[in-house]
Amino acid sequence: MIILDGKSIKNQILDNIRLEVIKLKDKPKLVVIQVGDDPASCVYVNQKKKMAEYVGYNFEHINLPESVSEDEVIKIIDKLNEENGVDGILVQMPLPNHLNSKIIQNRIIPSKDVDGLTDINTGKLVHNCASLISCTPKGIVDLLDAYKIEIRGKHAVIVGRSDLVGKPLVNLLLNRDATVSICHSKTKDLSTITKLADILIIAIGKKEFIDESMIKDKSIVIDVGINRVDNKLYGDVKFDTVSKKASYITPVPGGVGPMTIAELAKNVLCAYKINRQ
Amino acid sequence: MIILDGKSIKNQILDNIRLEVIKLKDKPKLVVIQVGDDPASCVYVNQKKKMAEYVGYNFEHINLPESVSEDEVIKIIDKLNEENGVDGILVQMPLPNHLNSKIIQNRIIPSKDVDGLTDINTGKLVHNCASLISCTPKGIVDLLDAYKIEIRGKHAVIVGRSDLVGKPLVNLLLNRDATVSICHSKTKDLSTITKLADILIIAIGKKEFIDESMIKDKSIVIDVGINRVDNKLYGDVKFDTVSKKASYITPVPGGVGPMTIAELAKNVLCAYKINRQ
Repeated sequence: MIILDGKSIKNQILDNIRLEVIKLKDKPKLVVIQVGDDPASCVYVNQKKKMAEYVGYNFEHINLPESVSEDEVIKIIDKLNEENGVDGILVQMPLPNHLNSKIIQNRIIPSKDVDGLTDINTGKLVHNCASLISCTPKGIVDLLDAYKIEIRGKHAVIVGRSDLVGKPLVNLLLNRDATVSICHSKTKDLSTITKLADILIIAIGKKEFIDESMIKDKSIVIDVGINRVDNKLYGDVKFDTVSKKASYITPVPGGVGPMTIAELAKNVLCAYKINRQ
Repeated sequence: MIILDGKSIKNQILDNIRLEVIKLKDKPKLVVIQVGDDPASCVYVNQKKKMAEYVGYNFEHINLPESVSEDEVIKIIDKLNEENGVDGILVQMPLPNHLNSKIIQNRIIPSKDVDGLTDINTGKLVHNCASLISCTPKGIVDLLDAYKIEIRGKHAVIVGRSDLVGKPLVNLLLNRDATVSICHSKTKDLSTITKLADILIIAIGKKEFIDESMIKDKSIVIDVGINRVDNKLYGDVKFDTVSKKASYITPVPGGVGPMTIAELAKNVLCAYKINRQ
């Protein structure tokens, strides 16, 4: 069994980007908009800031009060859309209930949408012509590629159908010639399907939901879950027992999480090239 | 075994639309752009014209020479995009090789994209907020609904991953709470997966490819194939034997084909409401 070490692959990716950024005359710039001060969001924004500082990007953190109106957020995005020095715009989710995240997300112009979540970039992904792809799904595929794990012809089973992970992953894996199944809370006989998976990806946010009885022998298991219980992190997979049966597995933390950050760094550089070169 | 009679459902849908159109002051208008004179394309354009005449839409057929340039097609689309009296614009596929169908397709403004194939409408479908959805997938779901066949919690297996059918169908069925698997030419052990299907949808364009050994007992079989051999039409499913094992099955012709036309009629009316009301 081999551990898919996302942290070390992330470090390689960031080091390569850092070397590329040194040679650029103007530095790429990432702007993160955060509404309110949810502690988890603060952690994620801080990770992005650290990444940006490490690779040499300019970084701006716009922290708006919880009470901000949709119009105000939209005005800020419109201004950033037009600003030449801004390459990537990202709105930290989740937003407070009075803000419509779909409207706000889609206000970002596609060429600066480094989260790849606008309708148009999502459609481009379906049609296999996207430049900016949602970071977590892209990170999973890049992690498999880093370990030279063949995707083509494999049966990939995804558990969880979020806009952020499950849905874009279907299209990304399909574009890479995998057979893809997607399961969720309404799926009956889940383990019948998960046991068919050559590559099993779990993104449901339930602590240690997948055990060894639900996976195929020698399968590749990707755990997207990050569940904090009593200040300890757990994945969606019962690592101790599943890792004995799998051929490859991602740890939590240190697997998919770091890859998400690495992909954001790649997307900002890609947006810079689209916007300025 | 029950035959899913797309033709009769289509007639009901068109009759309802016809009654609605009579009450409208201005008639909805559909414009079909055809390049060249491929015989199959002529048949399909003619079906659309007949539908439009039946329900009372204005219809314009713009038939461009095979040699037309991309710029000329784009100019025509731009003009139609701006024309107030035009509600739906459709470019008949396939286009000659010198024209980039993705660029041409995406030139249609989303509110007149009655084929639902632009990147933005595709992305909206993924995010479950689309108004104009690709006609064949929508027709399949409406046919199941017409027969009160529950989709939620069912395992739907799609064979074929075209932009026109397979890919939008994944998202449409997922939005309806099905568990969805998508197979294609690179899938290994296809019948292992097709035999798990509660709802099996075949859209690969291979005459009688699916036989009774590949389906589950009492499953629902949707045949999207239209294969013309020696001037006779065949589906992708071996109807004679599969129909003995299935609980519901679509015939070819008379199943999914008519539903596609019915959905186009619905999309034109929907576009009219978006654009003019």
